[in-house]
Amino acid sequence: MIEKYSIRTDLALEDKERFESDNVEVQGVSLKEDYDEEREIKVTTVKIETENGAKVMRKPVGTYITMEAPNMAVPDEDYHDEISKELAKFLARFIKKDKEDFSILVVGLGNRKVTPDALGPYVVDNLNITRHIVKEYGKYAMGEEDVRLVSAIVPGVMAQTGMETVEIIKGIVRETKPDMIIAIDALAARSSKRLNRTIQITDTGINPGSGVGNHRNAITKDTVGIPVLAIGVPTVVDAATIVNDTMENLILALESSETLRGVGVVMQGYNAAEKYELVKELISPHLNGLFVTPKDIDETVKRISYTISEALNMLFSRGHAHNQEMGVI
Amino acid sequence: MIEKYSIRTDLALEDKERFESDNVEVQGVSLKEDYDEEREIKVTTVKIETENGAKVMRKPVGTYITMEAPNMAVPDEDYHDEISKELAKFLARFIKKDKEDFSILVVGLGNRKVTPDALGPYVVDNLNITRHIVKEYGKYAMGEEDVRLVSAIVPGVMAQTGMETVEIIKGIVRETKPDMIIAIDALAARSSKRLNRTIQITDTGINPGSGVGNHRNAITKDTVGIPVLAIGVPTVVDAATIVNDTMENLILALESSETLRGVGVVMQGYNAAEKYELVKELISPHLNGLFVTPKDIDETVKRISYTISEALNMLFSRGHAHNQEMGVI
Amino acid sequence: MIEKYSIRTDLALEDKERFESDNVEVQGVSLKEDYDEEREIKVTTVKIETENGAKVMRKPVGTYITMEAPNMAVPDEDYHDEISKELAKFLARFIKKDKEDFSILVVGLGNRKVTPDALGPYVVDNLNITRHIVKEYGKYAMGEEDVRLVSAIVPGVMAQTGMETVEIIKGIVRETKPDMIIAIDALAARSSKRLNRTIQITDTGINPGSGVGNHRNAITKDTVGIPVLAIGVPTVVDAATIVNDTMENLILALESSETLRGVGVVMQGYNAAEKYELVKELISPHLNGLFVTPKDIDETVKRISYTISEALNMLFSRGHAHNQEMGVI
Amino acid sequence: MIEKYSIRTDLALEDKERFESDNVEVQGVSLKEDYDEEREIKVTTVKIETENGAKVMRKPVGTYITMEAPNMAVPDEDYHDEISKELAKFLARFIKKDKEDFSILVVGLGNRKVTPDALGPYVVDNLNITRHIVKEYGKYAMGEEDVRLVSAIVPGVMAQTGMETVEIIKGIVRETKPDMIIAIDALAARSSKRLNRTIQITDTGINPGSGVGNHRNAITKDTVGIPVLAIGVPTVVDAATIVNDTMENLILALESSETLRGVGVVMQGYNAAEKYELVKELISPHLNGLFVTPKDIDETVKRISYTISEALNMLFSRGHAHNQEMGVI
Repeated sequence: MIEKYSIRTDLALEDKERFESDNVEVQGVSLKEDYDEEREIKVTTVKIETENGAKVMRKPVGTYITMEAPNMAVPDEDYHDEISKELAKFLARFIKKDKEDFSILVVGLGNRKVTPDALGPYVVDNLNITRHIVKEYGKYAMGEEDVRLVSAIVPGVMAQTGMETVEIIKGIVRETKPDMIIAIDALAARSSKRLNRTIQITDTGINPGSGVGNHRNAITKDTVGIPVLAIGVPTVVDAATIVNDTMENLILALESSETLRGVGVVMQGYNAAEKYELVKELISPHLNGLFVTPKDIDETVKRISYTISEALNMLFSRGHAHNQEMGVI
Repeated sequence: MIEKYSIRTDLALEDKERFESDNVEVQGVSLKEDYDEEREIKVTTVKIETENGAKVMRKPVGTYITMEAPNMAVPDEDYHDEISKELAKFLARFIKKDKEDFSILVVGLGNRKVTPDALGPYVVDNLNITRHIVKEYGKYAMGEEDVRLVSAIVPGVMAQTGMETVEIIKGIVRETKPDMIIAIDALAARSSKRLNRTIQITDTGINPGSGVGNHRNAITKDTVGIPVLAIGVPTVVDAATIVNDTMENLILALESSETLRGVGVVMQGYNAAEKYELVKELISPHLNGLFVTPKDIDETVKRISYTISEALNMLFSRGHAHNQEMGVI
Repeated sequence: MIEKYSIRTDLALEDKERFESDNVEVQGVSLKEDYDEEREIKVTTVKIETENGAKVMRKPVGTYITMEAPNMAVPDEDYHDEISKELAKFLARFIKKDKEDFSILVVGLGNRKVTPDALGPYVVDNLNITRHIVKEYGKYAMGEEDVRLVSAIVPGVMAQTGMETVEIIKGIVRETKPDMIIAIDALAARSSKRLNRTIQITDTGINPGSGVGNHRNAITKDTVGIPVLAIGVPTVVDAATIVNDTMENLILALESSETLRGVGVVMQGYNAAEKYELVKELISPHLNGLFVTPKDIDETVKRISYTISEALNMLFSRGHAHNQEMGVI
Repeated sequence: MIEKYSIRTDLALEDKERFESDNVEVQGVSLKEDYDEEREIKVTTVKIETENGAKVMRKPVGTYITMEAPNMAVPDEDYHDEISKELAKFLARFIKKDKEDFSILVVGLGNRKVTPDALGPYVVDNLNITRHIVKEYGKYAMGEEDVRLVSAIVPGVMAQTGMETVEIIKGIVRETKPDMIIAIDALAARSSKRLNRTIQITDTGINPGSGVGNHRNAITKDTVGIPVLAIGVPTVVDAATIVNDTMENLILALESSETLRGVGVVMQGYNAAEKYELVKELISPHLNGLFVTPKDIDETVKRISYTISEALNMLFSRGHAHNQEMGVI
């Protein structure tokens, strides 16, 4: 199987696309697409089912649900309420329904001081926290028969704490014994068109870097001992990725153009890896550490983080009308 | 021994003053005062040496150093540098010098979103964090023979996390095994004249409420297993305290005034507790939850937190010239 | 007419109360009260109709509407929507309905960096600004037959700008020729029970200090040449005010108490002014520059400012359903 | 004269570079370079002397001084102090020395809520404002023989105010009559290597868009009636620019490469404009509105804005030791 040269993405959807554009079926990976025309929400479910699938996709075995909504970056309150409900519905699939007094630790990953990385901390800022109330006054204090105990932490990033985030989380899990972690993180996308309008939910937890295997800094069931659901939104694209995209377009144009057919012939002599090397050489060294983001990122991250925290608030408030409607309870 | 009616203060210095104003010696409590005229810094060391002393003072056995500098709220950079040095010198007394690769966890207590409570988080924001660098590259990466491993956490308050802060700290301590904790917290003072110009250092850790005994939420050697040095700055006074102070002045005036001698006689019939009850009754119920603070509290908390983080940065950078000067290394 | 000793308040309602508590009618001042039981909103309309009334009330001739809603500080979104609608309705009374393309300059007074003073800047942050769109694309760009041109400025305070705010406003008015100014400002209240739950609307503009006369720094029709509607919310009470309130309670208690009748007799010898002097003497000098505010002021100011900006957005969007309902258009 | 295809830059230095890389002398434009080896500061002075030069450079006649310091983004306090001094020295050249009580209005352009655009507002936040003090207490209140009256405004951007910034500035100038404006603004650069390490000073004011002529929104002597000195720092590069740079590298590589010579021949058939069209076609439409910036932009903008405000504070404090040293007074 020929793999195209690879640029990192945190979205399983985009890893899958690498192969689709070559019309290649990937064994051990299934894909399902749904489109809600009225609300313009596209939902893609990628399931990586085998270790082979995981290796090819460079992401662990598990389920990846991606919601794409072009208007997510638009400040329309009613629309955001729709997305929150939809998101709560998908999250509900991953939450056990039978356990009484289910306890969840929400982890807001990222750096509060760097706007495109502040999604996680912002989500935690707007959560309804209940664990301490139930512990202190009993579950009837919440005015509900069956409650969920929500706790949350914003651990900070290693440059701020001097600790691996997983060390902090493991310690807190050991002391407070939640049943599950929901980790929120800002992601890097492969395509600028997904910036700030895509939410990925996965039951594989947080897997830094290549993502496969039991990486020591991963926040997964393997490393922390309880299930980890991860919610992510791509807020940046590497500057190098943007350049690479355009180069690819150029090469395609050269290969197909009448007048440039001569170039096309030459280029065809290169395989994907060689082309990537060529591109890499041409990219300015000054692009390292730079990223591409919309100018209104400050407002956008606030808005989307609010949409996610509302979804979590709906999800955890069992008596909530939305939940009955969506079959969560 | 007659105790005056009591209003809560986090400053041992102010607990001591309750008795001094009555010219009463408290057994098991010693007090030493130093005044640095040039820099206008007054240093008071209160030592609670016995359980009796602890009971009377309503604070645990240990050492309490208070630095008072009237100009601490003034934005004079050079003066703040002086205070940082002085503070580093006092902190150094509590840090073991003989252990190689001493490891410190700094805990920034309080709520980042409530200005007068944000002192701890702000201090952590400006710390030089080194633990992860030493872990990754070895101690020579720091360019120093002997290093200290500094890590830090801003745990948030219970309303934000749903967890007792001590649960979070215990978990992190168990995972990352620091040798010592330095906890930074905003305090409540008894007297408005101490607001934002006083720093208290104590080796007794953080003791919420009355402060004596092994309270389950305390952050002390007893609860977390390693020594806890606490640094605090009073940033608020309860509104009720302010009112109470004035009432006391009034009663004193009534008792001493020629024309009001009649009142004085009546008032003398009351003991301290009765007077306090009278005052409490008169205080508006709307004062509950209100506090007194200067209008420029936002700027002031930032400035003092910077002074404290600079003191810690000096202290932990062993090769630093200041440290040699101050005998830390 | 006997006037009680006076502490400054920005609320006409509280100035009126000074006299009412003495059962004194003030000539030239009328008062009307309405109570909306369902929504727990109390509306008081004070009209100062003569120069005599203005002198006694120490506020200029004009109308002062005060909305008091105990739950204004509570984060209930639906309730805040109710208050926004109610507020829009009252504001509508002061806006001319017959002029086409009415143009309004909203001025967000106060210091963005000092939380209790940031109300004005925060309101402007959430306004729908339309003047530039209408100027560029014509009024049909707004999708409405009749539009209002909304512009806004956050001038900053004199310590930040070196200029009187009125100088800045006058200059902008001369260049951009709005028909009216709406100025938003944080106020000081007399009573802590009004903090963050009261909104005052007045057509007399912004009158610093004692408030009567054509003060050079006032922002009024006299100084800027166009009508100035002012919206204010009390966010602080002077620390001295709080103390004073309690003292007054004490003196009342002394005068009425059986056991303390002796004191009462003595105190009756003092008139109001003398009592105030006595109190002033007893108040700690450290109270100067201190103010009383709730600990969650950061969140509260954000919430109320949002309620006000929503009211203004409703008011200026002429096609808006609320406006038809409330008879604004 | 052949002009290369053009991408917008706010730096005159970069406009000049367009021609230099083609070894073309531009009539009416002079260039002088100085390099301070010790401090690694490169200073380039571009003078546009004729209307022809202005047309070619697409910038008005005037002087453009650019300071480039690679370490400007590094948090080294002493180094930043050096840059502040150097900057103050260059600014001093543009300030009249003979006028008594010279009065300056500093304008912090840009949007405080969008990090890379917040440079201007942040600079104003740290300025020493003196106009109101001198107006109130006389110039001796400043403790100096000869004072400068500093006032400042953060006008906001049109989307926030509904007004052209120049309308606001003109109004304020008319009311407060300063002798000169210093406007601070974040710029867009052509090259990512200049991001956050370059400061441009120009006596031509603020010229939006192509920059030549008397644009109605310009803030220049022509539009506001007093000299306007502009200080700018490039904080973003358009995403399209980054892509374009790489494409150019590719085309160069194709033209010179042995194996790709065939392509080179084909490409040589295109002129610069045609190549640019090709590139433009290939660039993803999703890049519109995106920009490239470093991830630590929040911290970086704060640091550089502080460096600029310190330079202004040095410059305006006439008695200041630095000023004597640098010959400002």
